[in-house]
Amino acid sequence: MAETEQLPESNVDVLIIGAGPAGLMAACWMAHCGINARIVDKRNSKIFCGQADGLQCRSFEIFDSLGFADRAWKEANHLIEMCMWNPGADGIIRRSDRLADTPVGFSRYQQCVLHQGRIERFFLDNIKKYSKDTIHIERGVLPESLEIDESKVDDASAYPVTIKLRRLTEEEAAPEQQANASKIADGLFRSSLIYEDDEEDLIQKSQARAGTGEVVHAKYVIGCDGARSWTRRALGFELHGEATDFIWGVLDIIPITDFPDIRMRCAIHSAEHGSLMVIPRENKIVRLYIQLKEVVPDASGRADRSKITPDLILHAAQQIISPYKLDYEYCDWWTAYQIGQRVGTNYDAHERVFLAGDAVHTHSPKAGQGMNVSMQDTYNLGWKVALVTKGIAKQSILKTYGSERRQIAQDLITFDHKFSRLFSGRPAKDLMDAEGVSMEEFKSAFVKGNLFASGLSVNYGANELIAKSVDAAQQTGEGESTISTAMQMSPELFAKRQALAVGLPVGMRFNSVKVLNQSDARPWHIQKKLKANGRFRVVLFAGNILSAAQKARVDKFCEALDAPTSFLRTAATTAGSSPDSVIEVLTIHSAKREETDLLRDFPEVLHPFNPHTGWDYDKVYVDDASYHEGFGDAYATYGIDKERGCVVVARPDQHVSWIGELEDFDDLQKYFEGCLVLGPKP
Amino acid sequence: MAETEQLPESNVDVLIIGAGPAGLMAACWMAHCGINARIVDKRNSKIFCGQADGLQCRSFEIFDSLGFADRAWKEANHLIEMCMWNPGADGIIRRSDRLADTPVGFSRYQQCVLHQGRIERFFLDNIKKYSKDTIHIERGVLPESLEIDESKVDDASAYPVTIKLRRLTEEEAAPEQQANASKIADGLFRSSLIYEDDEEDLIQKSQARAGTGEVVHAKYVIGCDGARSWTRRALGFELHGEATDFIWGVLDIIPITDFPDIRMRCAIHSAEHGSLMVIPRENKIVRLYIQLKEVVPDASGRADRSKITPDLILHAAQQIISPYKLDYEYCDWWTAYQIGQRVGTNYDAHERVFLAGDAVHTHSPKAGQGMNVSMQDTYNLGWKVALVTKGIAKQSILKTYGSERRQIAQDLITFDHKFSRLFSGRPAKDLMDAEGVSMEEFKSAFVKGNLFASGLSVNYGANELIAKSVDAAQQTGEGESTISTAMQMSPELFAKRQALAVGLPVGMRFNSVKVLNQSDARPWHIQKKLKANGRFRVVLFAGNILSAAQKARVDKFCEALDAPTSFLRTAATTAGSSPDSVIEVLTIHSAKREETDLLRDFPEVLHPFNPHTGWDYDKVYVDDASYHEGFGDAYATYGIDKERGCVVVARPDQHVSWIGELEDFDDLQKYFEGCLVLGPKP
Repeated sequence: MAETEQLPESNVDVLIIGAGPAGLMAACWMAHCGINARIVDKRNSKIFCGQADGLQCRSFEIFDSLGFADRAWKEANHLIEMCMWNPGADGIIRRSDRLADTPVGFSRYQQCVLHQGRIERFFLDNIKKYSKDTIHIERGVLPESLEIDESKVDDASAYPVTIKLRRLTEEEAAPEQQANASKIADGLFRSSLIYEDDEEDLIQKSQARAGTGEVVHAKYVIGCDGARSWTRRALGFELHGEATDFIWGVLDIIPITDFPDIRMRCAIHSAEHGSLMVIPRENKIVRLYIQLKEVVPDASGRADRSKITPDLILHAAQQIISPYKLDYEYCDWWTAYQIGQRVGTNYDAHERVFLAGDAVHTHSPKAGQGMNVSMQDTYNLGWKVALVTKGIAKQSILKTYGSERRQIAQDLITFDHKFSRLFSGRPAKDLMDAEGVSMEEFKSAFVKGNLFASGLSVNYGANELIAKSVDAAQQTGEGESTISTAMQMSPELFAKRQALAVGLPVGMRFNSVKVLNQSDARPWHIQKKLKANGRFRVVLFAGNILSAAQKARVDKFCEALDAPTSFLRTAATTAGSSPDSVIEVLTIHSAKREETDLLRDFPEVLHPFNPHTGWDYDKVYVDDASYHEGFGDAYATYGIDKERGCVVVARPDQHVSWIGELEDFDDLQKYFEGCLVLGPKP
Repeated sequence: MAETEQLPESNVDVLIIGAGPAGLMAACWMAHCGINARIVDKRNSKIFCGQADGLQCRSFEIFDSLGFADRAWKEANHLIEMCMWNPGADGIIRRSDRLADTPVGFSRYQQCVLHQGRIERFFLDNIKKYSKDTIHIERGVLPESLEIDESKVDDASAYPVTIKLRRLTEEEAAPEQQANASKIADGLFRSSLIYEDDEEDLIQKSQARAGTGEVVHAKYVIGCDGARSWTRRALGFELHGEATDFIWGVLDIIPITDFPDIRMRCAIHSAEHGSLMVIPRENKIVRLYIQLKEVVPDASGRADRSKITPDLILHAAQQIISPYKLDYEYCDWWTAYQIGQRVGTNYDAHERVFLAGDAVHTHSPKAGQGMNVSMQDTYNLGWKVALVTKGIAKQSILKTYGSERRQIAQDLITFDHKFSRLFSGRPAKDLMDAEGVSMEEFKSAFVKGNLFASGLSVNYGANELIAKSVDAAQQTGEGESTISTAMQMSPELFAKRQALAVGLPVGMRFNSVKVLNQSDARPWHIQKKLKANGRFRVVLFAGNILSAAQKARVDKFCEALDAPTSFLRTAATTAGSSPDSVIEVLTIHSAKREETDLLRDFPEVLHPFNPHTGWDYDKVYVDDASYHEGFGDAYATYGIDKERGCVVVARPDQHVSWIGELEDFDDLQKYFEGCLVLGPKP
């Protein structure tokens, strides 16, 4: 490629490779934080049907922080109940259990399904809106080379990553789309089986055409380019793990059936013919995951693609669901996959090039986890890259991405491995049938896995962004701690701090309750006030502000907060931004709303005055016992003392990261000194 | 105008004049029902700021039936509490009361405010979507003449109305927009004060330019062209009523103030300086309605426009709100108006040209009723015109529009007259102060008026669409009944029928409860299943379907329903439409969900089979006592016997229109024979 010198060159702060859910989530953060970013994808159009469809409660909470949960919630099918069907003594399947599909009371949302194409649509609209139409998905663009100048990686202002990009022709970039089963094309699930030959072809074809490339110098690169990630291979990293013998077919159909639970999520174990999962979807469609016992991998461990047809998959489903009838006229999509659980060896190179999503973890799709965990990778990473790029946060926080997310991928693989084994296994005939899977064990695994599968159990370990003591996994070296010795907290001190708000575990996402705005009495889920705009929040649980003793404590805390040397005043702000653009202070008090007055009872720093627009009426809330509706009583839910309150910090991704008393201001200051760039007030 | 013969001519089923909220609602129905319709407006752009902003609970329910309540709900400011401020013994204002702003438990929604421009935006998007981009707002188009060929008005297929339209130049059609108070222009509230000179000018200017007109022949015309309605004047109809001496200013500002309740809805009566209403809005804006005691109408009853400036209005507000301070930097909009309550003499001409909205009723804006009642006029009218145009309903139902809506306008005027008088009056100093207004009386009027103001109390009288006995108002001739003698029901029979479901009063909108879908256990507000698509719904409260005796009753009712001669089978359907495109049957049973099976326990007519897509899983619901969340227990809420159930009909606008036992099929058949065209099954 001697033409390199002639290619146009440009700089960009953040380059995102791949515009699937993980890449779009990363782009979304850049849009919300005002970062100069580009996102490229080799496909020339978005997904129309099929692919991932499961949406966790936590993904909805994240969508809400970005502003489009309502659109997804409205279109999605909500999964309320899970039915288990197993062989009875006569070998005929019957419903053995009904379980709630979502753990009750943990989230405002419910587990749902909606196809990936719609979710990508919501992302695109959101990115357009928040980037003011400056970030576009550049489709049909393929990366060809990646170099990191190691001499520059410690210089925050440098552009150490150089990427060569090439624009494909329409024809080259056309994705494989299967509109219906009448246009039959074979397809093994791309996220799990790695066939790299198509893509290599593409690169070779593309390289034959000179003069349509460009060279981009980036501060940061985020590779979200799927299980066959070009970025991962360019870095020389690998996925470790193994494939299994289980082969599954997938049909998205409008079923014609007398099976009574076809609109319920069902796990069906037949006596001899394998297992079937039913996932009812939007627009009358039902997704069926069907075990294909007749398709056996060859010696190399791969299944013979040519054997797998929609008819073969349907036939397998009919055998499993018998004596009920199953057929269809309309098929929206179909595919087949072989379960493989793999995790990436590395999550980043020099904290300048990052990998996310399927590029660093693959697993079976049946638990509906893939798209969620992938999006949550970049929901974790995006704000960190954005704040470092803006000079607000220290570069060192970037190493928490790998330590936090690799642990989640490991947990996912463990969960998926167990779940897949239990679901693919033949049901035990009786207690003596050691080779069969116990249906009780399957049910119990499902119930236990449900909280995990909701995405609500994620709990990050100690590091410079999470002020807690190092946990057991980190001590034994299984997890990774990036925390400096100076920042480490003793288990005793942490236990004391956590006891101030046991319902807000440090490391987990800020659980939502409803509180009322002090000024207008409007109820809000507090999570709605933790928008994804890159801000940390100091949530002051002010307790009983009408008690003179407590008021004195609040006044003293606010005095420290308002001092010229406090983190709130010295957090680096970009030119022209408002004082609370880096850290926002929210207050939730527990006094009687009607007897409390915003202007009289709260120090100004809690409701700042703006000479153009007056007082800020959106910062102070009340835990009003008269308004519950199932999510009220904040202090009780969080386990916070109603009289004395406490102080809680939430990171920009809503994870609780520090808890302390109102007197612990110095430690709070130290927390922010550890992760943010605190300069003199501009 | 000798050029008339040369103008292009065309036919249209429905022509709507005016694209404000009333006109857009009418166009929305045409889009949802697939009617060939046009909508024209003389302005060349939509509203950017100011104007109406109050949204009733009922308007949200209606928006939800069209599919965009969520957008309005998300952007609107929600009004939770109303605070009353009155002079104390010392003459200084203080908060005397807090009241809930919305009557509790009546609706899923809350009273809200959002400016008219956003609501028009939602309508435009919805019309575009449902009309498949075939209905566009034709802006800058002025009607010039209207003729009705009376010989054709009884012929359903005729186009008896001829309208001449003329396209204006950009300049002519520019609406008056006041972006802020620095660009000061005087403006009296256009909906309430009638100055026709501007429009006459426009018409004269327009007539000077030949060759840009057209002639349209319409089956039906809906005039929604505001208080100065051209359509009304073309028909020679008038508004009757009177103006008052009270003059009010309006400011939409971001207030800078120490008044503690500035983010609450407040009614402030000062001792001497007049009254002030505070309406907190979206985006930090607050709307203030300010009594202008210093501006006095002249001998003709009109106020001197030139005297009214934002400074004068602000000064008046400062005097009322004293000793609190009030100022602003940002003003979004301002205007002034004189209260006038007027109702149109006629609502239609030959049931071919209809008037709606401000064209037939004007009143003060403070109670936030105007836009709501206007939209509800055409929500009442639109489906009737659509169904008659499609040949589904009889032409005779069109006369129910005037009888139903004129009564509402009268009620509104009465409410507004009383409310305005009490709000504009000086507060009484003590019990002996006969000239002053009692603050207790004001509070009591407000509380009583609140249900009315929510839009939920509308109760239509007996007519061919509402199967009930003629009420007192109709008997004394105050209300108008369009019901034929043959259809009249005795008060005794009606009382017996209504007793089957006292919580669903015939004539009122179908109150919503949450029920679960039998097939997938998903909770739904039942109103969500009463979408605005022109269908009548027969809601079968099937009772305890697991009891053999009750099952026999249900089977018998369904047998009649499914017979070739039943209204369900003989309702005229347009070619190619599905069997339930005119009347849809929904079922809510009260047996235990887990013991009930859709396919086993319910006759096929309740969940029809489609050879392409299988069974219909969206028609049968269950009153599941385990799932309440404040809106459950349907049978108890509706007062329906859990064992025996009953049958309820909802019109396409969600109003309850017939109630009977499962044995009253013949009477139900008669109801539909009265209003629909029932032919042989195609």
